[in-house]
Amino acid sequence: MRRGGRRGRPSGEYPKHDEGAVWLWGTHAVKAALANPARRSRKLLVVGALDPAIQSLAGRAKVAVEAADAAALGRALPRDAVHQGVALLTHPLDELDIHDAIEGAAPPRRLVVLDQVTDPHNLGAILRSAAAFGACAVVVHERSTPPAGGVLAKAASGALEVVPLVRVVNISRTLDELAELGFLRLAFAEEAAESLETLDLDRDVALVLGAEGEGLRRLTREKCDVSVRLPTAPAMPSLNVSNAAAVGLYACAVARRQ
Amino acid sequence: MRRGGRRGRPSGEYPKHDEGAVWLWGTHAVKAALANPARRSRKLLVVGALDPAIQSLAGRAKVAVEAADAAALGRALPRDAVHQGVALLTHPLDELDIHDAIEGAAPPRRLVVLDQVTDPHNLGAILRSAAAFGACAVVVHERSTPPAGGVLAKAASGALEVVPLVRVVNISRTLDELAELGFLRLAFAEEAAESLETLDLDRDVALVLGAEGEGLRRLTREKCDVSVRLPTAPAMPSLNVSNAAAVGLYACAVARRQ
Repeated sequence: MRRGGRRGRPSGEYPKHDEGAVWLWGTHAVKAALANPARRSRKLLVVGALDPAIQSLAGRAKVAVEAADAAALGRALPRDAVHQGVALLTHPLDELDIHDAIEGAAPPRRLVVLDQVTDPHNLGAILRSAAAFGACAVVVHERSTPPAGGVLAKAASGALEVVPLVRVVNISRTLDELAELGFLRLAFAEEAAESLETLDLDRDVALVLGAEGEGLRRLTREKCDVSVRLPTAPAMPSLNVSNAAAVGLYACAVARRQ
Repeated sequence: MRRGGRRGRPSGEYPKHDEGAVWLWGTHAVKAALANPARRSRKLLVVGALDPAIQSLAGRAKVAVEAADAAALGRALPRDAVHQGVALLTHPLDELDIHDAIEGAAPPRRLVVLDQVTDPHNLGAILRSAAAFGACAVVVHERSTPPAGGVLAKAASGALEVVPLVRVVNISRTLDELAELGFLRLAFAEEAAESLETLDLDRDVALVLGAEGEGLRRLTREKCDVSVRLPTAPAMPSLNVSNAAAVGLYACAVARRQ
């Protein structure tokens, strides 16, 4: 039996959350959180050998590293969490408002506004696409949106540290503000007459997308400047909401380059 | 107490699968499967009131409808299955080969080829985007791909009935065949020099995408005609694989229309 190695706490339990701190897991999400100077993290749990890149990031961020027992870690995280041997107990980032989020961004600016998108996997994937295509923020409804915890962070693959998730009390009022700020507000709706690829997107654009299934609520849609559809087939008119957001962000990115 | 209504089997259990049949669940997936004449289904379980559209589809497909106990149904399905009160015990569709799948398709034809994409949610979302943008098939590796069961069907939201999932023994050999069939084989790779929006996509195209994390294997990539990247930021160079596939399919759909 090997002695003197890092010890886990095979009989201990980890809390599911701790004084406002939450667990993030998975190598991408943990690395990005450790590299983000705006994060306050409490400790890093490691199962097995520690990736030297993560070790160095934890050292720089002055976060304590603790060897963990796989079973105890599994019990602290959701059942199907693919933690890849690392979990970080960390405080959520300070929340920004829409003005902070767009301040200083080079035009043309892009925002994603989500109305009642509640699935953390979709929300995480949308944050990731928003980061990839240089959007300023993802705007969501405060009440119906899941917390910025581990499931969302894992799906965002580090993007939670790059693109702010802006929670607003009232999507409708936010859309009014975005008009004042000069954004073209595009409502994605499968029954729209206008097709995305025909629009001039080389300007400030807010992509407004609704829930899986029901799509955008009528009131939200009426607040937008244009309703657009994707060039989809009648047999399958709508995409998964994260896929639709990615397509919209790509169309904006391409418009900027032409 | 109301009498004479449909009865559940509150003390019974449903099998998790049955002589090759599997459960599909969720209204979109179940409706599409019932509407597909190529499906052989055994029975439809319903919790609570039955949607008249589903009742009529079940009648036309001559599938027995049985009132079910929610708890027993929950135990037959995976823990986090959002069944929306309906589950269909059905046989998987006959599998097509690549020649069957593209036969009769109007050019320009589009295919998605996935190398080691194993997450059924991603695979389902890709099938949905493939159906939406009129692709002929999604080609996957036989061994590493999850079965066409309930999780995949739910994420595909009916697309499993529209776009064939073609399982091949050897992706590399399939890419050779696609060259002979005249397809431009595009390897998606974040480090590629060529950017997707600069290519002429108004021709037969196979979009070749790799696993989350590792991306395309070198051998697969070398079999392709061009490696392409999406116009993403250095801070987040890659998208979720289903989002990348949706963007690729959209770019092809738009090329066809110009």
